[in-house]
Amino acid sequence: MALLSRKIINDPVYGFITLDHPLLLNIVAHPYYQRLRRINQMAFAHLVYPGAVHTRLHHSLGAYHLMGDAVTDLRRKGIEISEEEELGVKVAILLHDIGHGPYSHALENVVIRGVHHETLSLLIMKELNKEFGGQLETGIRIFTNDYPKRFLHQLVSGQLDMDRLDYLTRDSFFTGVSEGVIGYDRILKMLAVVDGELMVEEKAIYSIEKFLVARRLMYWQVYLHKTVVSAEKMLVRILERARELIGRGMEVSCCSPVLDFFLHDVTAASAISSNSSNLDKFCRLDDFDVMGTIKNWIFHPDMVLSELSRGLIDRKLLKVKFQATPFDMAYVEGLKEKTSRQLGITKEEAGYFVFTGEAVNTTYNPADEKIRILFRDGSIKDISQVDNALIQQTLASTVKKFYICHLSTGS
Amino acid sequence: MALLSRKIINDPVYGFITLDHPLLLNIVAHPYYQRLRRINQMAFAHLVYPGAVHTRLHHSLGAYHLMGDAVTDLRRKGIEISEEEELGVKVAILLHDIGHGPYSHALENVVIRGVHHETLSLLIMKELNKEFGGQLETGIRIFTNDYPKRFLHQLVSGQLDMDRLDYLTRDSFFTGVSEGVIGYDRILKMLAVVDGELMVEEKAIYSIEKFLVARRLMYWQVYLHKTVVSAEKMLVRILERARELIGRGMEVSCCSPVLDFFLHDVTAASAISSNSSNLDKFCRLDDFDVMGTIKNWIFHPDMVLSELSRGLIDRKLLKVKFQATPFDMAYVEGLKEKTSRQLGITKEEAGYFVFTGEAVNTTYNPADEKIRILFRDGSIKDISQVDNALIQQTLASTVKKFYICHLSTGS
Amino acid sequence: MALLSRKIINDPVYGFITLDHPLLLNIVAHPYYQRLRRINQMAFAHLVYPGAVHTRLHHSLGAYHLMGDAVTDLRRKGIEISEEEELGVKVAILLHDIGHGPYSHALENVVIRGVHHETLSLLIMKELNKEFGGQLETGIRIFTNDYPKRFLHQLVSGQLDMDRLDYLTRDSFFTGVSEGVIGYDRILKMLAVVDGELMVEEKAIYSIEKFLVARRLMYWQVYLHKTVVSAEKMLVRILERARELIGRGMEVSCCSPVLDFFLHDVTAASAISSNSSNLDKFCRLDDFDVMGTIKNWIFHPDMVLSELSRGLIDRKLLKVKFQATPFDMAYVEGLKEKTSRQLGITKEEAGYFVFTGEAVNTTYNPADEKIRILFRDGSIKDISQVDNALIQQTLASTVKKFYICHLSTGS
Amino acid sequence: MALLSRKIINDPVYGFITLDHPLLLNIVAHPYYQRLRRINQMAFAHLVYPGAVHTRLHHSLGAYHLMGDAVTDLRRKGIEISEEEELGVKVAILLHDIGHGPYSHALENVVIRGVHHETLSLLIMKELNKEFGGQLETGIRIFTNDYPKRFLHQLVSGQLDMDRLDYLTRDSFFTGVSEGVIGYDRILKMLAVVDGELMVEEKAIYSIEKFLVARRLMYWQVYLHKTVVSAEKMLVRILERARELIGRGMEVSCCSPVLDFFLHDVTAASAISSNSSNLDKFCRLDDFDVMGTIKNWIFHPDMVLSELSRGLIDRKLLKVKFQATPFDMAYVEGLKEKTSRQLGITKEEAGYFVFTGEAVNTTYNPADEKIRILFRDGSIKDISQVDNALIQQTLASTVKKFYICHLSTGS
Repeated sequence: MALLSRKIINDPVYGFITLDHPLLLNIVAHPYYQRLRRINQMAFAHLVYPGAVHTRLHHSLGAYHLMGDAVTDLRRKGIEISEEEELGVKVAILLHDIGHGPYSHALENVVIRGVHHETLSLLIMKELNKEFGGQLETGIRIFTNDYPKRFLHQLVSGQLDMDRLDYLTRDSFFTGVSEGVIGYDRILKMLAVVDGELMVEEKAIYSIEKFLVARRLMYWQVYLHKTVVSAEKMLVRILERARELIGRGMEVSCCSPVLDFFLHDVTAASAISSNSSNLDKFCRLDDFDVMGTIKNWIFHPDMVLSELSRGLIDRKLLKVKFQATPFDMAYVEGLKEKTSRQLGITKEEAGYFVFTGEAVNTTYNPADEKIRILFRDGSIKDISQVDNALIQQTLASTVKKFYICHLSTGS
Repeated sequence: MALLSRKIINDPVYGFITLDHPLLLNIVAHPYYQRLRRINQMAFAHLVYPGAVHTRLHHSLGAYHLMGDAVTDLRRKGIEISEEEELGVKVAILLHDIGHGPYSHALENVVIRGVHHETLSLLIMKELNKEFGGQLETGIRIFTNDYPKRFLHQLVSGQLDMDRLDYLTRDSFFTGVSEGVIGYDRILKMLAVVDGELMVEEKAIYSIEKFLVARRLMYWQVYLHKTVVSAEKMLVRILERARELIGRGMEVSCCSPVLDFFLHDVTAASAISSNSSNLDKFCRLDDFDVMGTIKNWIFHPDMVLSELSRGLIDRKLLKVKFQATPFDMAYVEGLKEKTSRQLGITKEEAGYFVFTGEAVNTTYNPADEKIRILFRDGSIKDISQVDNALIQQTLASTVKKFYICHLSTGS
Repeated sequence: MALLSRKIINDPVYGFITLDHPLLLNIVAHPYYQRLRRINQMAFAHLVYPGAVHTRLHHSLGAYHLMGDAVTDLRRKGIEISEEEELGVKVAILLHDIGHGPYSHALENVVIRGVHHETLSLLIMKELNKEFGGQLETGIRIFTNDYPKRFLHQLVSGQLDMDRLDYLTRDSFFTGVSEGVIGYDRILKMLAVVDGELMVEEKAIYSIEKFLVARRLMYWQVYLHKTVVSAEKMLVRILERARELIGRGMEVSCCSPVLDFFLHDVTAASAISSNSSNLDKFCRLDDFDVMGTIKNWIFHPDMVLSELSRGLIDRKLLKVKFQATPFDMAYVEGLKEKTSRQLGITKEEAGYFVFTGEAVNTTYNPADEKIRILFRDGSIKDISQVDNALIQQTLASTVKKFYICHLSTGS
Repeated sequence: MALLSRKIINDPVYGFITLDHPLLLNIVAHPYYQRLRRINQMAFAHLVYPGAVHTRLHHSLGAYHLMGDAVTDLRRKGIEISEEEELGVKVAILLHDIGHGPYSHALENVVIRGVHHETLSLLIMKELNKEFGGQLETGIRIFTNDYPKRFLHQLVSGQLDMDRLDYLTRDSFFTGVSEGVIGYDRILKMLAVVDGELMVEEKAIYSIEKFLVARRLMYWQVYLHKTVVSAEKMLVRILERARELIGRGMEVSCCSPVLDFFLHDVTAASAISSNSSNLDKFCRLDDFDVMGTIKNWIFHPDMVLSELSRGLIDRKLLKVKFQATPFDMAYVEGLKEKTSRQLGITKEEAGYFVFTGEAVNTTYNPADEKIRILFRDGSIKDISQVDNALIQQTLASTVKKFYICHLSTGS
């Protein structure tokens, strides 16, 4: 029955998303995938933009939807994409974020040390591939860029991949930051493939210009908003403090056994790749483990842990200042001393409330990936070589700011 | 500094929401209010509509925004509303849902027995009133309909209150169910007040017609969607099972002390109103306590508890069927027996997987509140007396369906 | 070169509309089609809703776009539609309104007497078919319901055809009447074909309910809005007066030779079908001929003609009243007499400023076309037999109101 | 009766626009204002973007709506604006475009020679001021920047005036070019006034950046789109040819006496300011006069006139090429000769089909008006001095391209 293997999902961004292959339906129904419902796509951005509570599952479905449009548009232009390749590239995009843990942007090097989320995505895909009898083979090859038609990989992971097109569109939609709107549909219509490489037609140049500017705006106005940075850094400090207390032998228990496991067993993460039971444990972690635990820690006897936890839960966040140059060390030390006196803690402990760092806008790394432009005369240039001063400026513009977090004076 | 007491919040639905009074800012900053960030407005609707993850905080802010528009529009029509009344009615709408606990639609009679969320809202308002030195006095009088200008209360709670206008608009927006769109702004423009009562001008009649139909559609297509009903009922059964096991002396621990407290101490809820420490505990409950706990129960030794928990978390839900008449008891008993054999549990335990009930669309209770229409000739009629067959039909149409939940065959 | 025969058009409603067949591009480029740019889709609705200035060309392209989606969705469900049929049904929808003249709703029986716009559409299609060497053959057969797969015709012309889905969506969009929004995309997804007949799946029932109510709202709130009716009737009266003066031998010249021709030669219209030069003349008529002419008539010596013309151009419209029963003749006669005295004209002439008629909401004629519902058990019912009181009520509800137009008192 | 002097207008862009003062209602009802219904805001842009058929009336109402929001927001920040000033600034924005004639961007120096539309706006305002007993006095002073509170004028005419905010928003909406969306509401919220000058708060910097980029995109992608430029230039050439023929004594009649008047009487325009009957004539000109006339000229005996007219009406436009440097004269002459032979006309006449010019993006003239930024520390800088490379680049980027129009080869 054809109808049984078809599911239509309402999406406020694109209208409807259609899943119409049994493999895709089975992937989405899998507990590992359903877990993405419990991981917020934008972590703490909702503290500033209350609408930004959409999930990684929603984003993955959205990127998958765009992939369907891209495949249709490219085929119309005569690019050959077989049924199997279509399914493969859809599998790859559907699962591209499956390796994300809760608050992974903040926690990637705290809870699961030294294992990148893309590595985890691949491990999980391989696991699912076993479960589904090898049906994910092509998808995995595309995901790992081990497939001859390179443009398929570039649709999944590249400067103009469906991941980016969806998250900018979706994040802009749910935050209500209308300036972040990009013309994703125009960009899709302008995609081209030459010699197996993905590129865009020349007449998309203003849309690309706009795309780069919108992305820049989203970074500084949303992703790296002061309040968002403060909350993320507090979360990191909370877990670091917990680990420190554990190291000292103090009791620090989590609200779930899986988080307990990863927090107490420092070798757990590195063993994930060789131990499928550890991988399964990882796939049970989500926002509920992290925030549920921190809610409990508000009542922990350690004052550093409890104060930071209470601040994060009640949205009494550390103050943040940004500037173009590193902060003066004497200034930072002075703040620490003041905090130490104010809270009656050691200066070392005060370092949990006063600290500095760098916020980086990873908009476009010219050394890294590329946006290729196909000109009317058939020539191809990388965008960094295009004669468009505005684009050059965007590409070259500030990508780093220095921040300091500290207790608000008088509190 | 005027600017210090002003905050602008992006909202994808209305653009911007402005908070411009210190009291309003203080209320929103309070931990009791911030907790609404952790309570999903639509509970399990996101299992069908993945965008429906907006929070009670977001809805409250939205309803507050509409209130500002309503006040402005009414004043333009010559209705007198003092500064103090404006602040009061805004306080009342901002806090109208503060008494909601997690999944309160499902859990109102399970976790917190016998205490209605409006009662809790009032208790919390009173608590905040103490904390803020009596500034919520007028707001509380309006909320409890103890204020002479009755239309102010009706803006907070009535057939066309800001609560309803916002939640229908917002829920339709986030689910992507475009058919649920109501013309909230037209209705606002058509509000009138005669003899202290809120009503709408005659020319809003098609918008009201549309409002009633959209609401009906939202009920059957979203709020009472089969999958949503299934998840909610499973949650109820899970907590009932937990209580039953506790009653038998079995260990059933929650992921947080506060949920442990309410689940184990059956008199806790009734004592809330007389015990402000219990009220404070209630104000720490949110979705994280409930879902974090159920995640843990997947590994509980009791098979009923663990199976239901796993089903809810992994979205392997009980099947639901709706029909217009009650289900045949023999049929239900037959299903229970089959389930009892299938899972190797008692027939009584099978009742946790097979059960019936009623889904009620509480669209409009003609006996209860009213929509008054102001005609051009100055006469006023209740909508149930208006000569509009479509409206009469909507008002009179089916509001109840019978459902059965059961294990899917073969699983 | 595939790319040469592809055109992408921005549409604020659907994002992009793609034309990707040389025949479709040639049809759209034809002067007969381009003329639709100069015919307002909603005639005088813009006098109330200033955004409602979209054209018949835009609507035709929109309906064509939906047809593409419908074909894709039906094929996914296993319905066979050949390439030729796809092109045919697209041609048919693209040209379904080509026979509309300017203000055709109002003028169908005034300027072009007794020739229905669908007849003209067919004549023009045949003409284009000659020009394009027979390529429109299948499209014409589908348009005239002379094609075996009846569902193709029903997609072009039926209760749920692409014409209606687009015009309700588009008119609601451009007027800003958000209550008129229908879930066109959900309806498309729910289309089914059984035994060659178009129908919708049962689960679309609330969307259909909504569709019928939205259409009703659009009729009374927009299409038959008092101001819109007044302007349309004034236009009819103006042209009737012009004809009357011509009949009396008075000079009444138009701003274009083609309108002169049709206005002076009473047999012209009936000869259209047998005279392709007359058809070509018809295809040069648009809103500019009509309104340009009426602008000039503001200075015509006949006071009836000039006053009505000035009123229409300057938006000083006749007053309109609606009621459920016919107007009392004595009352109407009284108004005429008053007007006759006020303007110093004969009572007969006063009849141009005071007149009555019927406004009819042609929502759904149960005797006529049908919406078929496909139930889960495979049974099929017409919507008029569905057990849904709201739908029944909508179908049965008032479709006629009586109106009177008259000079405003004192003006 | 307060309600009588209030009108609510649906707008798809902002929802509702409220007119709530008798003077505003009377201005809008005036024939001079109603005439703006018949002037397309975007001239020929609809030839590329079929939705772009909104009118100057609609835009004026939109800018008026934003003005209301700006006044409310500024007052909330403590800026004093009296009732009379509010009315004045609203009158000024409502009438800021009243002096536009049909296709004025193209025709300003053709039909009405040497009289700028702002001059005409002022003349018409003065005329209306007489008619309305001096009630427009304050509005006129604000419009002419002859009012002490300079920020009021800047809201009407300046780099961030309501005119620009509305037309960018509205044009982007109706064309469907989503990349043109600006955050108009955020900019409004960030407006400030210091020492009587309008400025924006520092935190609006990314929105301003976005505003400048969006405007640039709209210029090159929409306002100066090749097809749009071609149609505008053809219109200019058509009217120039008509004037030339008239000069030679040939009969060239228009579809309306007013266009005849302005086309034949070369001194008419310059006499407008001293002759109110000429001003009244000007106020009867609209798109219908121009396009109605050109439709007739398709059949004019002069081949240059008829061919250009047919091309414009049937959308068979001259080809356009853009480049960064002026076109080579020999190349242009060659094309003229070819065209002269092809059409059998003189080389001079061929100049009507082959010609060059400059397309200028008037985004921001740093020498001219300014955007002032108010920094947190109270300092004020012009945007051209702000340390933001992207903005500097946008301000400095290409504003001029050279174009050539010519007959398509082989046609």
